[in-house]
Amino acid sequence: MLSQSSSQMPLAVNHISVDCVVLGFDGEKVRVLLIKRVGEENGQVFHDMKLPGGLIFTDENLDDAARRVLRELTGIKSINLLQFKAYGSKDRTKNAKDVHWLERAIQMKVDRIVTIAYIALVRINRGLTNSSGENEICWVPLDEVKTLAFDHNIILADAIDVVRRHAEADPSYLFNLLPQKFTILQLRTLYERVYGKPQDVRNFQKKVNQLDYVVALDEHEQGVAHRAARLYRFDRKLFKRVRR
Amino acid sequence: MLSQSSSQMPLAVNHISVDCVVLGFDGEKVRVLLIKRVGEENGQVFHDMKLPGGLIFTDENLDDAARRVLRELTGIKSINLLQFKAYGSKDRTKNAKDVHWLERAIQMKVDRIVTIAYIALVRINRGLTNSSGENEICWVPLDEVKTLAFDHNIILADAIDVVRRHAEADPSYLFNLLPQKFTILQLRTLYERVYGKPQDVRNFQKKVNQLDYVVALDEHEQGVAHRAARLYRFDRKLFKRVRR
Repeated sequence: MLSQSSSQMPLAVNHISVDCVVLGFDGEKVRVLLIKRVGEENGQVFHDMKLPGGLIFTDENLDDAARRVLRELTGIKSINLLQFKAYGSKDRTKNAKDVHWLERAIQMKVDRIVTIAYIALVRINRGLTNSSGENEICWVPLDEVKTLAFDHNIILADAIDVVRRHAEADPSYLFNLLPQKFTILQLRTLYERVYGKPQDVRNFQKKVNQLDYVVALDEHEQGVAHRAARLYRFDRKLFKRVRR
Repeated sequence: MLSQSSSQMPLAVNHISVDCVVLGFDGEKVRVLLIKRVGEENGQVFHDMKLPGGLIFTDENLDDAARRVLRELTGIKSINLLQFKAYGSKDRTKNAKDVHWLERAIQMKVDRIVTIAYIALVRINRGLTNSSGENEICWVPLDEVKTLAFDHNIILADAIDVVRRHAEADPSYLFNLLPQKFTILQLRTLYERVYGKPQDVRNFQKKVNQLDYVVALDEHEQGVAHRAARLYRFDRKLFKRVRR
Protein backbone atom coordinates (compact mmCIF):
# COMPACT_ATOMS: atom_id res chain seq x y z
CA MET A 1 0.00 0.00 0.00
CA LEU A 2 2.98 2.23 0.52
CA SER A 3 6.07 3.40 -1.25
CA GLN A 4 9.16 4.96 0.25
CA SER A 5 8.73 8.54 -0.84
CA SER A 6 5.38 8.80 0.94
CA SER A 7 7.16 10.04 4.04
CA GLN A 8 8.60 13.03 2.15
CA MET A 9 5.48 14.16 0.30
CA PRO A 10 2.18 15.38 1.72
CA LEU A 11 -0.49 12.72 1.41
CA ALA A 12 -3.89 13.82 0.25
CA VAL A 13 -6.80 13.57 2.67
CA ASN A 14 -9.85 13.61 0.50
CA HIS A 15 -13.58 13.73 0.42
CA ILE A 16 -15.24 10.95 -1.49
CA SER A 17 -18.48 11.28 -3.33
CA VAL A 18 -20.62 9.23 -5.66
CA ASP A 19 -22.29 10.64 -8.77
CA CYS A 20 -24.98 8.91 -10.79
CA VAL A 21 -25.62 9.23 -14.50
CA VAL A 22 -29.26 8.14 -14.77
CA LEU A 23 -30.42 7.86 -18.37
CA GLY A 24 -33.94 7.53 -19.71
CA PHE A 25 -35.56 7.49 -23.15
CA ASP A 26 -38.84 9.26 -23.98
CA GLY A 27 -39.35 7.52 -27.34
CA GLU A 28 -37.71 10.40 -29.14
CA LYS A 29 -34.66 11.49 -27.13
CA VAL A 30 -32.28 10.11 -24.54
CA ARG A 31 -32.52 12.19 -21.37
CA VAL A 32 -30.31 12.46 -18.31
CA LEU A 33 -31.60 13.07 -14.80
CA LEU A 34 -30.19 16.32 -13.45
CA ILE A 35 -30.57 18.29 -10.22
CA LYS A 36 -31.04 22.04 -10.29
CA ARG A 37 -28.44 23.84 -8.22
CA VAL A 38 -28.73 27.32 -6.76
CA GLY A 39 -25.55 28.95 -5.52
CA GLU A 40 -24.03 32.31 -4.78
CA GLU A 41 -20.65 33.56 -5.97
CA ASN A 42 -19.29 37.08 -5.53
CA GLY A 43 -22.67 38.19 -4.27
CA GLN A 44 -24.39 36.93 -7.41
CA VAL A 45 -26.96 34.16 -7.29
CA PHE A 46 -26.45 31.54 -10.01
CA HIS A 47 -28.57 28.64 -11.26
CA ASP A 48 -27.14 25.62 -12.97
CA MET A 49 -27.35 21.84 -12.90
CA LYS A 50 -25.45 18.81 -11.71
CA LEU A 51 -25.64 15.05 -11.64
CA PRO A 52 -27.39 13.51 -8.64
CA GLY A 53 -24.62 12.71 -6.17
CA GLY A 54 -23.34 13.23 -2.68
CA LEU A 55 -20.55 12.60 -0.21
CA ILE A 56 -20.33 9.15 1.33
CA PHE A 57 -20.95 8.58 5.02
CA THR A 58 -18.39 7.09 7.38
CA ASP A 59 -19.98 3.68 7.54
CA GLU A 60 -21.14 3.42 3.98
CA ASN A 61 -19.82 1.33 1.12
CA LEU A 62 -19.55 3.04 -2.25
CA ASP A 63 -22.42 1.13 -3.84
CA ASP A 64 -24.66 1.74 -0.81
CA ALA A 65 -23.88 5.45 -0.93
CA ALA A 66 -24.83 5.62 -4.61
CA ARG A 67 -28.14 3.88 -3.91
CA ARG A 68 -28.89 6.11 -0.92
CA VAL A 69 -28.10 9.35 -2.75
CA LEU A 70 -30.26 8.38 -5.67
CA ARG A 71 -33.12 7.32 -3.40
CA GLU A 72 -32.97 10.62 -1.47
CA LEU A 73 -32.78 12.83 -4.53
CA THR A 74 -35.08 11.02 -6.92
CA GLY A 75 -37.08 8.44 -5.00
CA ILE A 76 -35.65 5.73 -7.25
CA LYS A 77 -35.19 2.45 -5.37
CA SER A 78 -33.98 -0.99 -6.42
CA ILE A 79 -32.02 0.19 -9.36
CA ASN A 80 -29.20 -1.54 -11.20
CA LEU A 81 -26.22 0.79 -10.74
CA LEU A 82 -23.03 0.12 -12.68
CA GLN A 83 -19.86 1.61 -11.20
CA PHE A 84 -17.76 2.73 -14.16
CA LYS A 85 -15.00 5.13 -13.19
CA ALA A 86 -13.30 7.08 -10.43
CA TYR A 87 -12.53 10.76 -11.06
CA GLY A 88 -9.77 12.24 -8.92
CA SER A 89 -8.12 15.02 -10.86
CA LYS A 90 -7.21 18.14 -8.90
CA ASP A 91 -8.92 20.06 -11.70
CA ARG A 92 -12.27 18.78 -10.46
CA THR A 93 -12.32 21.61 -7.91
CA LYS A 94 -10.60 24.31 -9.95
CA ASN A 95 -13.83 26.28 -10.28
CA ALA A 96 -14.13 28.41 -7.11
CA LYS A 97 -17.89 28.52 -7.57
CA ASP A 98 -18.16 24.75 -7.09
CA VAL A 99 -15.83 24.70 -4.09
CA HIS A 100 -17.61 27.55 -2.31
CA TRP A 101 -21.01 26.02 -2.97
CA LEU A 102 -19.90 22.70 -1.52
CA GLU A 103 -18.05 24.17 1.46
CA ARG A 104 -21.13 26.15 2.38
CA ALA A 105 -23.29 23.06 2.07
CA ILE A 106 -21.17 20.68 4.13
CA GLN A 107 -19.62 23.32 6.41
CA MET A 108 -16.20 21.85 5.89
CA LYS A 109 -13.06 22.85 4.02
CA VAL A 110 -12.84 21.08 0.67
CA ASP A 111 -9.44 20.18 -0.77
CA ARG A 112 -10.14 17.47 -3.29
CA ILE A 113 -13.16 15.32 -3.95
CA VAL A 114 -12.65 11.99 -5.60
CA THR A 115 -15.94 10.87 -7.07
CA ILE A 116 -16.96 7.37 -8.02
CA ALA A 117 -19.31 7.48 -10.98
CA TYR A 118 -22.25 5.16 -11.63
CA ILE A 119 -24.61 4.59 -14.55
CA ALA A 120 -28.23 3.49 -14.44
CA LEU A 121 -30.64 3.02 -17.32
CA VAL A 122 -34.29 3.43 -16.28
CA ARG A 123 -37.76 3.63 -17.74
CA ILE A 124 -38.45 7.33 -17.92
CA ASN A 125 -42.10 7.01 -16.90
CA ARG A 126 -41.27 5.87 -13.38
CA GLY A 127 -42.37 8.29 -10.70
CA LEU A 128 -39.76 10.55 -9.17
CA THR A 129 -39.87 12.12 -5.73
CA ASN A 130 -37.27 14.27 -4.12
CA SER A 131 -37.36 13.55 -0.40
CA SER A 132 -34.65 16.12 0.26
CA GLY A 133 -37.20 18.75 -0.72
CA GLU A 134 -34.41 21.14 -1.60
CA ASN A 135 -33.50 20.54 -5.17
CA GLU A 136 -35.64 20.29 -8.25
CA ILE A 137 -34.97 17.30 -10.51
CA CYS A 138 -35.53 17.14 -14.24
CA TRP A 139 -35.01 14.94 -17.27
CA VAL A 140 -32.87 16.91 -19.74
CA PRO A 141 -32.37 15.72 -23.35
CA LEU A 142 -28.68 14.95 -23.93
CA ASP A 143 -28.41 17.53 -26.71
CA GLU A 144 -29.74 20.26 -24.42
CA VAL A 145 -27.34 19.74 -21.51
CA LYS A 146 -25.45 22.96 -20.72
CA THR A 147 -22.35 23.49 -18.58
CA LEU A 148 -22.75 21.36 -15.46
CA ALA A 149 -21.16 21.67 -12.03
CA PHE A 150 -17.66 20.29 -11.41
CA ASP A 151 -16.54 17.90 -14.19
CA HIS A 152 -20.03 16.48 -14.66
CA ASN A 153 -20.02 17.14 -18.42
CA ILE A 154 -16.96 14.88 -18.72
CA ILE A 155 -18.53 12.22 -16.51
CA LEU A 156 -21.70 12.32 -18.63
CA ALA A 157 -19.75 12.01 -21.90
CA ASP A 158 -17.74 9.08 -20.52
CA ALA A 159 -20.95 7.41 -19.35
CA ILE A 160 -22.47 7.52 -22.85
CA ASP A 161 -19.31 5.90 -24.15
CA VAL A 162 -19.56 3.15 -21.52
CA VAL A 163 -23.23 2.58 -22.41
CA ARG A 164 -22.26 2.10 -26.07
CA ARG A 165 -19.52 -0.40 -25.29
CA HIS A 166 -21.70 -2.18 -22.74
CA ALA A 167 -24.54 -2.50 -25.24
CA GLU A 168 -22.17 -3.99 -27.82
CA ALA A 169 -21.04 -6.66 -25.37
CA ASP A 170 -24.56 -7.22 -24.00
CA PRO A 171 -27.42 -6.49 -26.46
CA SER A 172 -29.99 -6.76 -23.67
CA TYR A 173 -28.63 -3.64 -21.97
CA LEU A 174 -30.52 -0.95 -23.91
CA PHE A 175 -33.90 -2.64 -23.39
CA ASN A 176 -33.77 -1.24 -19.86
CA LEU A 177 -34.57 2.12 -21.46
CA LEU A 178 -37.70 0.99 -23.29
CA PRO A 179 -41.22 0.58 -21.92
CA GLN A 180 -42.49 -3.01 -21.43
CA LYS A 181 -44.17 -2.82 -24.83
CA PHE A 182 -42.49 -0.83 -27.57
CA THR A 183 -42.60 -0.28 -31.32
CA ILE A 184 -39.74 -1.01 -33.74
CA LEU A 185 -39.62 2.71 -34.43
CA GLN A 186 -38.92 3.36 -30.75
CA LEU A 187 -36.23 0.70 -30.69
CA ARG A 188 -34.60 2.08 -33.83
CA THR A 189 -34.78 5.65 -32.60
CA LEU A 190 -33.10 4.55 -29.36
CA TYR A 191 -30.20 2.98 -31.29
CA GLU A 192 -29.88 6.07 -33.45
CA ARG A 193 -29.73 8.32 -30.39
CA VAL A 194 -27.25 6.18 -28.48
CA TYR A 195 -24.88 5.66 -31.41
CA GLY A 196 -25.46 9.10 -32.90
CA LYS A 197 -26.06 7.88 -36.46
CA PRO A 198 -29.09 6.92 -38.58
CA GLN A 199 -30.05 3.23 -38.97
CA ASP A 200 -31.40 1.95 -42.26
CA VAL A 201 -35.12 1.22 -41.73
CA ARG A 202 -35.27 -2.08 -43.64
CA ASN A 203 -31.99 -3.48 -42.37
CA PHE A 204 -32.99 -2.62 -38.83
CA GLN A 205 -36.35 -4.39 -39.17
CA LYS A 206 -34.55 -7.43 -40.66
CA LYS A 207 -32.04 -7.52 -37.80
CA VAL A 208 -34.82 -7.33 -35.21
CA ASN A 209 -36.77 -10.12 -36.94
CA GLN A 210 -33.72 -12.35 -36.47
CA LEU A 211 -33.69 -11.77 -32.72
CA ASP A 212 -35.78 -14.48 -31.03
CA TYR A 213 -35.89 -12.49 -27.81
CA VAL A 214 -37.66 -9.49 -29.36
CA VAL A 215 -41.17 -10.91 -29.41
CA ALA A 216 -43.95 -9.49 -31.63
CA LEU A 217 -47.24 -9.08 -29.73
CA ASP A 218 -50.82 -9.29 -30.99
CA GLU A 219 -51.22 -5.69 -29.92
CA HIS A 220 -50.85 -2.33 -31.55
CA GLU A 221 -50.27 1.20 -30.35
CA GLN A 222 -53.32 2.99 -28.95
CA GLY A 223 -54.52 6.51 -29.64
CA VAL A 224 -51.97 7.56 -32.25
CA ALA A 225 -52.76 9.82 -35.20
CA HIS A 226 -50.70 7.75 -37.67
CA ARG A 227 -51.24 4.07 -38.52
CA ALA A 228 -50.92 2.15 -35.24
CA ALA A 229 -47.67 0.16 -35.17
CA ARG A 230 -47.28 -3.33 -33.78
CA LEU A 231 -45.96 -3.64 -30.24
CA TYR A 232 -43.02 -5.81 -29.22
CA ARG A 233 -41.57 -6.92 -25.91
CA PHE A 234 -38.10 -7.99 -24.81
CA ASP A 235 -38.03 -11.56 -23.43
CA ARG A 236 -35.19 -11.69 -20.91
CA LYS A 237 -35.52 -15.42 -20.23
CA LEU A 238 -35.29 -16.23 -23.92
CA PHE A 239 -32.36 -13.85 -24.25
CA LYS A 240 -30.45 -15.60 -21.47
CA ARG A 241 -31.09 -19.00 -23.03
CA VAL A 242 -29.94 -17.84 -26.48
CA ARG A 243 -26.80 -16.19 -25.18
CA ARG A 244 -25.59 -19.22 -23.24
CA MET B 1 -23.02 16.75 -4.93
CA LEU B 2 -25.00 16.89 -1.75
CA SER B 3 -28.12 15.53 -0.21
CA GLN B 4 -30.07 16.82 2.73
CA SER B 5 -29.20 14.20 5.33
CA SER B 6 -25.49 14.95 4.98
CA SER B 7 -25.75 17.49 7.76
CA GLN B 8 -27.05 14.89 10.20
CA MET B 9 -24.62 12.05 9.44
CA PRO B 10 -20.86 12.01 9.86
CA LEU B 11 -19.14 12.31 6.51
CA ALA B 12 -16.18 10.05 5.89
CA VAL B 13 -12.76 11.60 5.44
CA ASN B 14 -10.74 9.03 3.67
CA HIS B 15 -7.35 8.06 2.44
CA ILE B 16 -7.13 7.25 -1.22
CA SER B 17 -4.73 4.78 -2.72
CA VAL B 18 -4.06 3.17 -6.05
CA ASP B 19 -3.30 -0.53 -6.49
CA CYS B 20 -1.95 -2.14 -9.65
CA VAL B 21 -2.60 -5.65 -10.90
CA VAL B 22 0.37 -6.23 -13.21
CA LEU B 23 0.13 -9.49 -15.13
CA GLY B 24 2.81 -11.31 -17.12
CA PHE B 25 3.06 -14.65 -18.92
CA ASP B 26 6.15 -16.88 -18.81
CA GLY B 27 5.08 -19.17 -21.66
CA GLU B 28 3.58 -21.62 -19.22
CA LYS B 29 1.78 -19.66 -16.51
CA VAL B 30 0.19 -16.26 -15.99
CA ARG B 31 1.95 -14.46 -13.14
CA VAL B 32 1.07 -11.43 -11.06
CA LEU B 33 3.60 -8.94 -9.76
CA LEU B 34 3.53 -8.88 -5.97
CA ILE B 35 5.43 -7.03 -3.26
CA LYS B 36 6.68 -8.85 -0.18
CA ARG B 37 5.43 -7.24 3.01
CA VAL B 38 6.99 -7.59 6.45
CA GLY B 39 4.89 -6.52 9.40
CA GLU B 40 4.50 -7.01 13.12
CA GLU B 41 1.29 -7.83 14.96
CA ASN B 42 0.98 -8.70 18.64
CA GLY B 43 4.74 -8.86 18.90
CA GLN B 44 4.97 -11.42 16.08
CA VAL B 45 6.72 -10.67 12.82
CA PHE B 46 4.74 -11.76 9.77
CA HIS B 47 5.58 -12.04 6.08
CA ASP B 48 2.98 -11.86 3.34
CA MET B 49 2.37 -10.19 0.01
CA LYS B 50 0.37 -7.38 -1.52
CA LEU B 51 -0.28 -5.71 -4.84
CA PRO B 52 2.02 -2.82 -5.74
CA GLY B 53 0.18 0.29 -4.61
CA GLY B 54 0.35 3.41 -2.51
CA LEU B 55 -1.47 6.44 -1.20
CA ILE B 56 -1.90 9.36 -3.58
CA PHE B 57 -0.18 12.68 -2.98
CA THR B 58 -2.05 15.96 -2.56
CA ASP B 59 -1.29 17.24 -6.03
CA GLU B 60 -1.53 13.99 -7.91
CA ASN B 61 -4.19 12.72 -10.27
CA LEU B 62 -5.24 9.10 -9.87
CA ASP B 63 -3.60 7.91 -13.09
CA ASP B 64 -0.37 9.78 -12.28
CA ALA B 65 -0.30 8.20 -8.83
CA ALA B 66 -0.67 4.72 -10.30
CA ARG B 67 2.18 5.36 -12.73
CA ARG B 68 4.42 6.78 -9.99
CA VAL B 69 3.79 3.96 -7.55
CA LEU B 70 4.52 1.35 -10.18
CA ARG B 71 7.67 3.15 -11.29
CA GLU B 72 8.95 3.42 -7.71
CA LEU B 73 8.19 -0.17 -6.79
CA THR B 74 9.05 -1.99 -10.02
CA GLY B 75 11.00 0.38 -12.27
CA ILE B 76 8.29 -0.06 -14.91
CA LYS B 77 7.77 3.13 -16.95
CA SER B 78 5.58 4.01 -19.89
CA ILE B 79 3.00 1.37 -19.19
CA ASN B 80 -0.60 1.17 -20.35
CA LEU B 81 -2.63 1.21 -17.13
CA LEU B 82 -6.36 0.54 -17.28
CA GLN B 83 -8.40 1.87 -14.36
CA PHE B 84 -11.09 -0.74 -13.69
CA LYS B 85 -12.72 -0.32 -10.29
CA ALA B 86 -12.87 1.61 -7.02
CA TYR B 87 -12.97 -0.38 -3.78
CA GLY B 88 -14.40 1.44 -0.79
CA SER B 89 -15.95 -1.11 1.53
CA LYS B 90 -15.41 -0.57 5.25
CA ASP B 91 -14.39 -4.24 5.31
CA ARG B 92 -11.20 -3.35 3.47
CA THR B 93 -9.63 -2.41 6.80
CA LYS B 94 -11.31 -4.97 9.03
CA ASN B 95 -8.03 -6.85 9.51
CA ALA B 96 -6.18 -5.09 12.37
CA LYS B 97 -2.90 -6.38 10.99
CA ASP B 98 -3.34 -4.35 7.80
CA VAL B 99 -4.42 -1.21 9.62
CA HIS B 100 -1.54 -1.31 12.09
CA TRP B 101 0.98 -1.98 9.36
CA LEU B 102 -0.27 0.99 7.36
CA GLU B 103 -0.60 3.36 10.33
CA ARG B 104 2.98 2.61 11.31
CA ALA B 105 4.14 3.21 7.74
CA ILE B 106 2.39 6.53 7.15
CA GLN B 107 2.35 7.70 10.79
CA MET B 108 -1.27 8.64 10.52
CA LYS B 109 -4.54 7.30 11.82
CA VAL B 110 -6.30 5.21 9.18
CA ASP B 111 -10.10 5.10 9.08
CA ARG B 112 -10.93 3.94 5.61
CA ILE B 113 -8.91 3.65 2.45
CA VAL B 114 -10.68 3.79 -0.85
CA THR B 115 -8.44 2.27 -3.47
CA ILE B 116 -8.64 2.75 -7.22
CA ALA B 117 -7.49 -0.41 -8.99
CA TYR B 118 -5.57 -0.60 -12.25
CA ILE B 119 -4.56 -3.42 -14.60
CA ALA B 120 -1.48 -3.66 -16.77
CA LEU B 121 -0.39 -6.51 -19.04
CA VAL B 122 3.38 -6.59 -19.58
CA ARG B 123 6.08 -8.74 -21.14
CA ILE B 124 7.46 -10.67 -18.23
CA ASN B 125 11.06 -10.48 -19.43
CA ARG B 126 11.30 -6.73 -18.90
CA GLY B 127 13.79 -5.70 -16.23
CA LEU B 128 12.43 -4.78 -12.83
CA THR B 129 14.08 -2.49 -10.32
CA ASN B 130 12.74 -1.48 -6.96
CA SER B 131 13.94 2.03 -6.30
CA SER B 132 12.27 2.09 -2.91
CA GLY B 133 14.89 -0.46 -1.83
CA GLU B 134 12.54 -1.66 0.90
CA ASN B 135 10.34 -4.31 -0.55
CA GLU B 136 11.18 -7.33 -2.60
CA ILE B 137 9.13 -7.82 -5.76
CA CYS B 138 8.31 -11.13 -7.39
CA TRP B 139 6.27 -12.69 -10.17
CA VAL B 140 3.91 -15.20 -8.57
CA PRO B 141 1.93 -17.71 -10.70
CA LEU B 142 -1.80 -17.06 -10.29
CA ASP B 143 -2.42 -20.55 -8.93
CA GLU B 144 0.19 -20.04 -6.20
CA VAL B 145 -1.11 -16.75 -4.81
CA LYS B 146 -1.84 -17.05 -1.07
CA THR B 147 -3.81 -14.73 1.21
CA LEU B 148 -2.82 -11.18 0.32
CA ALA B 149 -3.01 -7.97 2.35
CA PHE B 150 -6.29 -6.03 2.58
CA ASP B 151 -8.81 -7.16 -0.08
CA HIS B 152 -6.12 -7.71 -2.70
CA ASN B 153 -7.29 -11.27 -3.45
CA ILE B 154 -10.68 -9.86 -4.44
CA ILE B 155 -9.08 -7.12 -6.53
CA LEU B 156 -6.90 -9.72 -8.30
CA ALA B 157 -9.87 -12.00 -9.04
CA ASP B 158 -11.89 -9.04 -10.39
CA ALA B 159 -8.93 -8.03 -12.55
CA ILE B 160 -8.75 -11.46 -14.20
CA ASP B 161 -12.42 -11.16 -14.97
CA VAL B 162 -11.90 -7.74 -16.53
CA VAL B 163 -9.01 -9.08 -18.63
CA ARG B 164 -11.27 -11.84 -19.98
CA ARG B 165 -14.06 -9.43 -20.92
CA HIS B 166 -11.60 -6.93 -22.34
CA ALA B 167 -9.93 -9.62 -24.49
CA GLU B 168 -13.33 -10.66 -25.85
CA ALA B 169 -14.10 -7.11 -26.92
CA ASP B 170 -10.54 -6.47 -28.18
CA PRO B 171 -8.65 -9.58 -29.38
CA SER B 172 -5.38 -7.61 -29.55
CA TYR B 173 -5.33 -7.18 -25.77
CA LEU B 174 -3.69 -10.48 -24.77
CA PHE B 175 -0.82 -10.05 -27.23
CA ASN B 176 0.61 -7.56 -24.74
CA LEU B 177 1.53 -10.61 -22.64
CA LEU B 178 3.50 -12.41 -25.37
CA PRO B 179 7.10 -11.84 -26.50
CA GLN B 180 7.60 -10.12 -29.89
CA LYS B 181 8.00 -13.56 -31.48
CA PHE B 182 5.97 -16.44 -30.11
CA THR B 183 4.87 -19.98 -30.98
CA ILE B 184 1.28 -21.11 -31.44
CA LEU B 185 1.77 -23.32 -28.39
CA GLN B 186 2.56 -20.23 -26.32
CA LEU B 187 -0.48 -18.41 -27.69
CA ARG B 188 -2.74 -21.38 -27.02
CA THR B 189 -1.34 -21.90 -23.52
CA LEU B 190 -1.99 -18.23 -22.78
CA TYR B 191 -5.65 -18.57 -23.81
CA GLU B 192 -6.00 -21.74 -21.75
CA ARG B 193 -4.58 -20.01 -18.68
CA VAL B 194 -6.66 -16.84 -19.02
CA TYR B 195 -9.94 -18.64 -19.66
CA GLY B 196 -9.14 -21.59 -17.40
CA LYS B 197 -10.12 -24.27 -19.89
CA PRO B 198 -8.31 -26.38 -22.53
CA GLN B 199 -8.39 -25.35 -26.19
CA ASP B 200 -8.61 -27.96 -28.93
CA VAL B 201 -5.20 -28.02 -30.68
CA ARG B 202 -6.46 -28.26 -34.27
CA ASN B 203 -9.33 -25.81 -33.89
CA PHE B 204 -7.02 -23.32 -32.28
CA GLN B 205 -4.47 -23.59 -35.10
CA LYS B 206 -7.29 -23.16 -37.62
CA LYS B 207 -8.61 -20.08 -35.84
CA VAL B 208 -5.16 -18.52 -35.75
CA ASN B 209 -4.61 -19.24 -39.45
CA GLN B 210 -7.72 -17.17 -40.17
CA LEU B 211 -6.31 -14.14 -38.37
CA ASP B 212 -4.44 -11.97 -40.85
CA TYR B 213 -2.76 -10.05 -38.06
CA VAL B 214 -1.00 -13.12 -36.60
CA VAL B 215 1.86 -13.35 -39.07
CA ALA B 216 3.95 -16.51 -39.57
CA LEU B 217 7.70 -15.77 -39.70
CA ASP B 218 10.45 -17.59 -41.58
CA GLU B 219 12.01 -18.30 -38.19
CA HIS B 220 11.85 -21.13 -35.71
CA GLU B 221 12.54 -21.51 -32.01
CA GLN B 222 16.20 -21.75 -31.01
CA GLY B 223 17.82 -24.16 -28.58
CA VAL B 224 14.84 -26.32 -27.71
CA ALA B 225 15.02 -30.06 -27.04
CA HIS B 226 11.84 -30.83 -28.99
CA ARG B 227 11.21 -30.10 -32.68
CA ALA B 228 11.63 -26.33 -33.11
CA ALA B 229 8.26 -24.67 -33.70
CA ARG B 230 7.60 -21.84 -36.11
CA LEU B 231 7.55 -18.32 -34.69
CA TYR B 232 4.76 -15.81 -35.22
CA ARG B 233 4.34 -12.12 -34.53
CA PHE B 234 1.33 -9.90 -33.88
CA ASP B 235 0.93 -7.14 -36.46
CA ARG B 236 -0.82 -4.24 -34.73
CA LYS B 237 -1.11 -2.08 -37.85
CA LEU B 238 -2.77 -4.90 -39.75
CA PHE B 239 -5.04 -5.56 -36.78
CA LYS B 240 -6.19 -1.95 -36.67
CA ARG B 241 -6.90 -1.97 -40.41
CA VAL B 242 -8.89 -5.23 -40.20
CA ARG B 243 -10.93 -4.08 -37.20
CA ARG B 244 -12.02 -0.81 -38.76
